[in-house]
Amino acid sequence: MTALFVAFEGGEGVGKSTQIERAAAWLRTRGRDVLETREPGGTPLGRELRRLVLDPDSHHVTPRAEALLYAADRAHHVDTVIRPALAAGRDVLTDRYVDSTLAYQGAGRGLPDARVVTTWATGGLLPDLTVLLDLDPRVGLARAGARSSFDRLEAAALDFHEEVRAAFLALAAEAPERYVVLDAHRSSDAIAAEVAEAIGTRLFDVER
Amino acid sequence: MTALFVAFEGGEGVGKSTQIERAAAWLRTRGRDVLETREPGGTPLGRELRRLVLDPDSHHVTPRAEALLYAADRAHHVDTVIRPALAAGRDVLTDRYVDSTLAYQGAGRGLPDARVVTTWATGGLLPDLTVLLDLDPRVGLARAGARSSFDRLEAAALDFHEEVRAAFLALAAEAPERYVVLDAHRSSDAIAAEVAEAIGTRLFDVER
Repeated sequence: MTALFVAFEGGEGVGKSTQIERAAAWLRTRGRDVLETREPGGTPLGRELRRLVLDPDSHHVTPRAEALLYAADRAHHVDTVIRPALAAGRDVLTDRYVDSTLAYQGAGRGLPDARVVTTWATGGLLPDLTVLLDLDPRVGLARAGARSSFDRLEAAALDFHEEVRAAFLALAAEAPERYVVLDAHRSSDAIAAEVAEAIGTRLFDVER
Repeated sequence: MTALFVAFEGGEGVGKSTQIERAAAWLRTRGRDVLETREPGGTPLGRELRRLVLDPDSHHVTPRAEALLYAADRAHHVDTVIRPALAAGRDVLTDRYVDSTLAYQGAGRGLPDARVVTTWATGGLLPDLTVLLDLDPRVGLARAGARSSFDRLEAAALDFHEEVRAAFLALAAEAPERYVVLDAHRSSDAIAAEVAEAIGTRLFDVER
């Protein structure tokens, strides 16, 4: 049984971190060794880059530079965290991965061909499964706003977030065998059950 | 008469900054408005990234992440410094540009296809002229060592620098119409005269 690489994607406030925690707990009760990680900021370098990009008082980073900083964070994260964990047989659950760049920088900021950069950054490593938590951005932004002060991404206009949502859905539609799209308007319990189902199908098929 | 974009490339200690200063002075005596800039570190963001990458006590940045950080710096530099200056009619002389990434990260560190990233980062902006200062790396490293303490790049092994030198020469051979390759073992005066000749040919052809 090999290690599973799962990315959790979606807009602001869709509940990715909650669902990752629950999925990790569920996997651990089944004896799996699980690594929970995130982008940007899954490495010390990444945390510095995250600070550079997200600090509203920081530089006015151009969209192209922003996408490349996220790509640098990702390249470092893939090479120093994700690949070693998978090689050691650990399941990896990441909060955001390439689809976030394609949705936020590619579609949201109108950068063409962002995929050439993400593919280069990861050396082509794709998740076995991407869990897309789909939510009306008005709901998600309200949830995220209740949780913490808005950072630069969250302060951007609503139509930006509508484009991001559409971009995530389009990515899932392109490769449905690698995605599960879940309606995140529902309860955390309902979503967690479907995440477990999707992961279980891939991991424990032979036992079913 | 439009603005001219000139990149100065080459290994450590070849004399790029001296030649840029001299070329800028030469252009100014001919009434040109000149911007001297550099990569990495031509913008405030770039200076932070340069610190992240070059600080020997900093993170062990993976080669792929390193190339992407340079690309982020370059994208920001192109969009906020180089393109606006050219649009305002200023000649731009930059200390390093895409060829440095292709030579150092592409060839030196063995990363395939680094060009897809540099092309994406610059939006395809190429220099009108690239001045390649070619020097035996043993000579260049000795000069650079006399000048300042070695940073991480300068401390790398000699064969790395041999590969970088070969990569620069190969890039020039690919597109000779956009390059002038100068033997940097000679005196600063001799080199400056040839740089002025190469720039003058492109700028003032009608006056010759």
